[in-house]
Amino acid sequence: MTTQEILLRARGAKPAMALADTERKNAALRAMADCLLAAEDDILAANVLDLQAAKGTVSDVMLDRLALNRDRIAGMADGIRQVAGLPDPVGQVLRRVERPNGLVIERTAVPMGVIAIIYESRPNVTSDAAALALKAGSACVLRCGKEAHRSAQAIVTALKRGLEQAGLPTDALMLVEDTTRASANELMRANGLVDLLIPRGGAGLIRACVDNATVNVIETGTGICHIYVDKAADLDMALDILTNAKCSRPSVCNAAEVCLVHRDIAPTLLPRLRERLVNERLGAGQVPVELRLDTAAAAIIDGTPADEADFDTEFLDYILAVSVVDGVEGAMAHIATHSTGHSECIVTADAAAARTFLSGVDAAAVYHNASTRFTDGGEFGLGCEMGISTQKLHARGPMGLEELCCYKYIVRGGGQIR
Amino acid sequence: MTTQEILLRARGAKPAMALADTERKNAALRAMADCLLAAEDDILAANVLDLQAAKGTVSDVMLDRLALNRDRIAGMADGIRQVAGLPDPVGQVLRRVERPNGLVIERTAVPMGVIAIIYESRPNVTSDAAALALKAGSACVLRCGKEAHRSAQAIVTALKRGLEQAGLPTDALMLVEDTTRASANELMRANGLVDLLIPRGGAGLIRACVDNATVNVIETGTGICHIYVDKAADLDMALDILTNAKCSRPSVCNAAEVCLVHRDIAPTLLPRLRERLVNERLGAGQVPVELRLDTAAAAIIDGTPADEADFDTEFLDYILAVSVVDGVEGAMAHIATHSTGHSECIVTADAAAARTFLSGVDAAAVYHNASTRFTDGGEFGLGCEMGISTQKLHARGPMGLEELCCYKYIVRGGGQIR
Repeated sequence: MTTQEILLRARGAKPAMALADTERKNAALRAMADCLLAAEDDILAANVLDLQAAKGTVSDVMLDRLALNRDRIAGMADGIRQVAGLPDPVGQVLRRVERPNGLVIERTAVPMGVIAIIYESRPNVTSDAAALALKAGSACVLRCGKEAHRSAQAIVTALKRGLEQAGLPTDALMLVEDTTRASANELMRANGLVDLLIPRGGAGLIRACVDNATVNVIETGTGICHIYVDKAADLDMALDILTNAKCSRPSVCNAAEVCLVHRDIAPTLLPRLRERLVNERLGAGQVPVELRLDTAAAAIIDGTPADEADFDTEFLDYILAVSVVDGVEGAMAHIATHSTGHSECIVTADAAAARTFLSGVDAAAVYHNASTRFTDGGEFGLGCEMGISTQKLHARGPMGLEELCCYKYIVRGGGQIR
Repeated sequence: MTTQEILLRARGAKPAMALADTERKNAALRAMADCLLAAEDDILAANVLDLQAAKGTVSDVMLDRLALNRDRIAGMADGIRQVAGLPDPVGQVLRRVERPNGLVIERTAVPMGVIAIIYESRPNVTSDAAALALKAGSACVLRCGKEAHRSAQAIVTALKRGLEQAGLPTDALMLVEDTTRASANELMRANGLVDLLIPRGGAGLIRACVDNATVNVIETGTGICHIYVDKAADLDMALDILTNAKCSRPSVCNAAEVCLVHRDIAPTLLPRLRERLVNERLGAGQVPVELRLDTAAAAIIDGTPADEADFDTEFLDYILAVSVVDGVEGAMAHIATHSTGHSECIVTADAAAARTFLSGVDAAAVYHNASTRFTDGGEFGLGCEMGISTQKLHARGPMGLEELCCYKYIVRGGGQIR
C-alpha cells in the first residue's frame, strides 16, 4: 500500500476512534496485549530476520535495542495493559463557563485525529506508541526504521487483531510500508491527513521534521541537561545528584551532560567530583566518567581539556563537561546559550538563588535539589509517556495522554444571536 | 535596523519581561495608553501620509481599515487599559502534584518569550497585539504591512514611551522596519529568536507561514463556517441564527458562509430563507444576500447556481452558499470535506442529532442553537483575543492571554535521586 493510501485509511478510522467510549478502547487495549502475547513466535521469528539483516551494518547498541525476547514482549504487553488502566482524557471538560446571555461554553478535550510517529530501531515503540495514541482516541500511523520493520510488521499484525476483537477498525493502526526517506517526508507534509507528527529518535530526525514539516510537529528529545552547583549547596547532595544524573543511565535524554560550578566552591567540589566520578567508579569496577574541563576547572583537577563543542553536545555517554561560573547569574547565562530546553537543575540551600534560577531558566523542567533524571512521564505522575517535548507550543516536558489530545469548544444555546 | 538586530534586541528584553510582576506590567500598559493619547497628533499625521500613499493602490475597504481618527485612537487606548485589567496568566500553577518520593512538581504558566506578529493594514492591531503579548510576559515583534507602516511606527514610538515610564525595556516592543516579503520570511525561520509567530491576515499570508515557517506558528483565521438546519429545527430560530451569522458582520471569520438544509424541510425553509435574506433586506434598504444554490436548492428557490468552489470559499461578503443534505450525517460529511475547522453550528430541537453533531464535527467551536458569530475572545469570556486559532496544536479557537503563554515544570526536592 502506498503511504498516501495508508494515511487515507487512518483518516477513515478517525470518527470511529473519536466516538469509541472508554470501555471499548480499554477492551481493545487488553485484547491487543493478549494478541501480542499470542503472536510471540511470529514476532520473534520476524525479529530474528531483522537482526540477521542488521548485523554488521549497525552498532552493538543498536542491535541490542532491536532485539526482542519473551521478556521484552511480555513487558510490551504489560505496557499496553497499563495504558488501559489510565484515565481516559477524551471528553474531559477542561473549563466551563456560562455567559450572561445563557450560552454554555465547554472547553472539552478531544482526540487529535491521526497521530503519526516516526521512530527508529526500537520495536517496543510500536506497541507503546500505538497504545497511547489509540487510548487518546486517535488513529495511529507508525513509520519505523528499516532495521525494525519486519518486527514492527509482526507486532502491528497482532495488535490489529486486538482492535478487531473489540470492534474497532483495524485501519486505526497503520504501519507505513515504505521505509525510505520518502515516506518520512510524505508524513511531514501530509496536511489534512496527519493531525500531529511526533518524531522519536536522534537529533537528525528531529531536525529534519522541524525544518521540513508543514503538519503540526512536537519536537522531542535532545537533552543537554545542566546541573549547577551553587556556593550554598550541600556538597554531599550535589555529588549524589551529579552522580545519579550522569551515571544512572547515560544514554537517555534526561541524563546530565554539563556540570556548572560556582567559582567560590570549585576548589572544594571539583576534587571530590573527580574522586566520585572517576576514582571511586574505577575502584568499584564501573565505567569512569571522562571529565571535560574548561580552563578554570582544569586549573583545579586533572581531566580532558574541553573545547567549545563539548558544551553543545549531548554525549549520551560517561562524559561530563565541567565549567566554572560566576554564581547563579553566570550559570543562567551559560544555560541560556547552550540549553536545549529540556531539564536544568540548581543545587543550593539558598532560597533566593533557587527562586532566581527556577524563574529565570527557560526549559521544560527546572529543578531545585533533585536529579534531572526525574523528567519522565511515570516519575511526573502521568502514568505513561509518548516522549519529552522540548518545544514550547502545546506540550512541554513529558507528554502523557492529555498532551496527545487537543480541545474544542462546545457551545450550547437557545437561539442566541449577537 | 536589520530584522536580525531587531530580533536580538527583543530577545534581550525577554528576561526583564518574564520577571516583571503584574503591577509593573499593568503600570506599563496604563502608561502606554496615556502615551498613545498624548501622541495622537503625531499618529494622525503619520496616518495621513499612509493614506495618501495608499490611495489608488488599494480598495476602499482597505483604506477604511487603514484610516485612524481620534475616536479610533481613543478606542485603542481603551483596549490597552482593558488588557491591564485582565488577570495575569504568568506564574499560575496549572497543576500541582506531590510525589511519593517527596518531589513537588508544579506545572506553571510562563511567558513564550518573543512573540512575533505579522499583520496587514490595520494600524489598531499594533496596540492590541502589543498589549496582549506584553501582558503575557513576552517581548513583542511586530511586522505590519507597508501600507500601515508609518502609522504603526508612530504608535510604537508612543507605546515605547509608556514601557520606559514603567521601567520596562523599550526593546520589549519592536517594529520590523523592512516591509518587504524578506522580513516576513526571516521571522518565519528565526529559530532561537522567535518563540511564537502569529500571522494575522488573509489566507495567503497564513498559508505562507504554514508552508515556510520553521518556528512555532499558530494558524489563525480562515473561517468557512456552516449552519446546518436539521429537520427538527425551530425554523424561526434557524432563520434568526442564519441572518445573524451571515449579515451582522460579513467581513469577519466567524460569519457563516454556508447553509446546509435537511432535505425534508428544504421546501419549507428555503422560501423563507430567501424572503428573509433577499426580499426583506431589499425592502428595508439593506444589502441583499446573494444565494448560491446547489441543484437541489435551486429546484426550490431562485438564486445563483453554485459551483463546487462556492463551498470552499470564505466570501466575507453578503453571499451564502446553500446545499441540501441528507440529515445530520450528510451535513457532517459535507463539513468534514469543506470545513476550515473554525465554527460549525447545528440548529435542531433533537437532542440526539445535536449530540452526534457536537461530538462528530471537528472544529475549534461547535454550536447547538446559537450563532457562529460568538466565536470571539470577548464573547467566550476571555476578556480579549489575539486571534482565532484554527489549528489543533496548543490553542484552538479564540486565543486569550493564557493561550499566549506556555508552561514549564518547576520541581522542588530535597536531594532526590532516581
